[in-house]
Amino acid sequence: MPSASASRKSQEKPREIMDAAEDYAKERYGISSMIQSQEKPDRILVLVRDLTVQRADEVVWVRARVHTSRAKGKQCFLVLRQQQFNVQALVAVGDHASKQMVKFAANINKESIVDVEGVVRKVNQKIGSCTQQDVELHVQKIYVISLAEPRLPLQLDDAIRPEVEGEEEGRATVNQDTRLDNRVIDLRTSTSQAIFRLQSGICHLFRETLINKGFVEIQTPKIISAASEGGANVFTVSYFKNNAYLAQSPQLYKQMCICADFEKVFCIGPVFRAEDSNTHRHLTEFVGLDIEMAFNYHYHEVLEEIADTLVQIFKGLQERFQTEIQTVNKQFPCEPFKFLEPTLRLEYCEALAMLREAGVEMGDEEDLSTPNEKLLGRLVKEKYDTDFYILDKYPLAVRPFYTMPDPRNPKHSNSYDMFMRGEEILSGAQRIHDPQLLTERALHHGIDLEKIKAYIDSFRFGAPPHAGGGIGLERVTMLFLGLHNVRQTSMFPRDPKRLTP
Amino acid sequence: MPSASASRKSQEKPREIMDAAEDYAKERYGISSMIQSQEKPDRILVLVRDLTVQRADEVVWVRARVHTSRAKGKQCFLVLRQQQFNVQALVAVGDHASKQMVKFAANINKESIVDVEGVVRKVNQKIGSCTQQDVELHVQKIYVISLAEPRLPLQLDDAIRPEVEGEEEGRATVNQDTRLDNRVIDLRTSTSQAIFRLQSGICHLFRETLINKGFVEIQTPKIISAASEGGANVFTVSYFKNNAYLAQSPQLYKQMCICADFEKVFCIGPVFRAEDSNTHRHLTEFVGLDIEMAFNYHYHEVLEEIADTLVQIFKGLQERFQTEIQTVNKQFPCEPFKFLEPTLRLEYCEALAMLREAGVEMGDEEDLSTPNEKLLGRLVKEKYDTDFYILDKYPLAVRPFYTMPDPRNPKHSNSYDMFMRGEEILSGAQRIHDPQLLTERALHHGIDLEKIKAYIDSFRFGAPPHAGGGIGLERVTMLFLGLHNVRQTSMFPRDPKRLTP
Repeated sequence: MPSASASRKSQEKPREIMDAAEDYAKERYGISSMIQSQEKPDRILVLVRDLTVQRADEVVWVRARVHTSRAKGKQCFLVLRQQQFNVQALVAVGDHASKQMVKFAANINKESIVDVEGVVRKVNQKIGSCTQQDVELHVQKIYVISLAEPRLPLQLDDAIRPEVEGEEEGRATVNQDTRLDNRVIDLRTSTSQAIFRLQSGICHLFRETLINKGFVEIQTPKIISAASEGGANVFTVSYFKNNAYLAQSPQLYKQMCICADFEKVFCIGPVFRAEDSNTHRHLTEFVGLDIEMAFNYHYHEVLEEIADTLVQIFKGLQERFQTEIQTVNKQFPCEPFKFLEPTLRLEYCEALAMLREAGVEMGDEEDLSTPNEKLLGRLVKEKYDTDFYILDKYPLAVRPFYTMPDPRNPKHSNSYDMFMRGEEILSGAQRIHDPQLLTERALHHGIDLEKIKAYIDSFRFGAPPHAGGGIGLERVTMLFLGLHNVRQTSMFPRDPKRLTP
Repeated sequence: MPSASASRKSQEKPREIMDAAEDYAKERYGISSMIQSQEKPDRILVLVRDLTVQRADEVVWVRARVHTSRAKGKQCFLVLRQQQFNVQALVAVGDHASKQMVKFAANINKESIVDVEGVVRKVNQKIGSCTQQDVELHVQKIYVISLAEPRLPLQLDDAIRPEVEGEEEGRATVNQDTRLDNRVIDLRTSTSQAIFRLQSGICHLFRETLINKGFVEIQTPKIISAASEGGANVFTVSYFKNNAYLAQSPQLYKQMCICADFEKVFCIGPVFRAEDSNTHRHLTEFVGLDIEMAFNYHYHEVLEEIADTLVQIFKGLQERFQTEIQTVNKQFPCEPFKFLEPTLRLEYCEALAMLREAGVEMGDEEDLSTPNEKLLGRLVKEKYDTDFYILDKYPLAVRPFYTMPDPRNPKHSNSYDMFMRGEEILSGAQRIHDPQLLTERALHHGIDLEKIKAYIDSFRFGAPPHAGGGIGLERVTMLFLGLHNVRQTSMFPRDPKRLTP
């Protein structure tokens, strides 16, 4: 019983198919005309993930991509995919489908989008290759909504194959540049879908937690008039007849909001660093999750709020995104992320002692190198069984000029980093809120006072003590999932060599 | 009974005060040393908004700014302010305060931050000038935590005075440049606090609504390799040895995410327009609330989701931010924002008819001028009693090349704007998802195909029909509150003449 809509569609079928007069199914398949909002049909499209035995024997319409097709005599098996879900569909010569229709279905290019009408049938043997294992769809009508070109720049099945398996078996995997060059297709894989749905969850949990804690979301400008932190690593913008710069962090603006009585603020936005480094964890543009907060007497009030925010994110991810975590693990196996409550806080000198005990030679006022960071992560994991910890009280000498010195030890500072799986994801500190001390520290660092005048002036009309920090979204996503490159967790990564797509 | 902490503080008091041996209250006031996280006292600081008759006769500690001080014989009245809340405090010569202490309190510079210990006392006559009208604080101790400089660049009381009153009575108001030059202080006013707390609410409601509707938040790059919409009005960035550009919208990336099966996406981020225009509603950098969504058969599915999202924002603001709305109204009186459910949708030709009836001469394919937009807003308000409506089916000729033509009328398009109080806040459309039609339309617009190759290629591997739109956060905030300049609703506005602070 072809619907009015199906009839209309069949009239738009290519002529060669129309000519096949002996085709009793000719109105049941074809290439639809482009959807241009011609009409508003009542048809309900069922989601692939809702195709379960509860719907057995129902006739449903589904819109999905053709993930694979395989013709076999008078039958054609399709795998229909919708995001991370897929179902097997069968077009078989019979009452509904003609030989020509089976051939048509078998020849639809992979990744094309189709509207399919079919009966949901329970299967006796689970279909291991699909997420909907207990049913298949017996196709009665199939129309192509958007036709993909025949040659795909990469195969989705190759793109989700674990690296190890690929090497062992000699089967294809997809290298990173091919993925990134064809990101629209690479993002369709179950792994990418899971990574970025989880990343969306990180942003949501970050804000949900902070809004509940009474924080206010702020929007800070990205085009700024002066390079905020001395001028190194800053991108220059032509601004009408002058030059301007891209903000390397929202820090000045966060601090101004604290001086303007917003008390607890956060923002999520792009951060720009013109560093010509091509490591696994550096991007020239990344997303900063930034926090700044006035405190009463001790910056640990802030430290605890930030650590708790991260813990709430970890918990929320493990509760709400278990499917996504497992999907990513299939391609990139890794241990579940472990953390303690309350969060482990070590002082820098304790970390030094642990490293020295492990044979590392380091000065008291030396910063952690990347290998030492990683080693420390392993030592901490062994000793405390946590993938997340705070390192507090950094040497003053290795921190920026606006960092508050430790009142008890002039070589230490009220500053901290946070680590996930041995890599830094947050850097923060109590900031100097006194214009006089700030001036002294800037001079000590050899900074041109003229360039930071506006910054210092912000503190001249009463400023509460405050602290904060900035989190790298891509790093948190990468390290939570145990991935190994931030380009996997940036949808459209930017580095010195990549500006596209 | 001075606490250990107060004793310590008194030791750090300036010498001249220490010398006043006859001062029996000398340990009860002074300038504290800078809070450097020396200790973690148990002291609980009570919020000003919690100072009510329920706390009458309790001794409390409060940290707040000195909003005003007025000495009167042996007494000094302070108004202590905390964000939008304030309370009267009294320092009077007696058991707790000496003459010197009253003098000290009277001389604290406005906007300084103080820690005050005092007894909450019920007052017989309401204190009209404070938010906490039923109590005052009888001060027993007062320490300056952060001293403001004596001369403020603007007075907060001037900054919240309604313009009309200022003109009528000849009392001072503060002009916009002075406000923006001293934004840290201007943002402390009750009006600014309310505007930006409400703006934070808009972002929160936008995301809350969309997450509940199943949308995924995405992060799109701001540095791009080619000027996306033809090259006009784009900022150029020096990118290592090459040039790059700042994204004028996230549209290409939103659409790529749709082609990559994310189905419903949103993002909040900066948008850059190098337009040399200095109007009340243009900024060179603003915050875009962007939506893109695949639909089944008709772009009105998307239109309705966007309109509903805005309605949920309006409702949420009226429910959760009534105090903020009223605070802004005190300085900038305006009618409450009205909207209908479902949202009024007019077609462009209907709007033309209304304008023509009102005497406007306009061609069928002519765009709306700003004055005609405003006039239309008034006509719609009169006829339908709504401040929010959709204008659908714009002439194809006035829309960008990627806009889907109307299948029923080749001069119309499947595109729409949304208006608040007669000003555009959103522009959107069904986008062309077919690479062939997209190529034809680009050629028709005289666009260099080479420059948009990546854009067109995104649709070659199966693309669902989709539509979306971009909302200007500053405009929504401005128009919801009935303000008259986006610079009032951008914390740190950027225009051709302003890049600071």
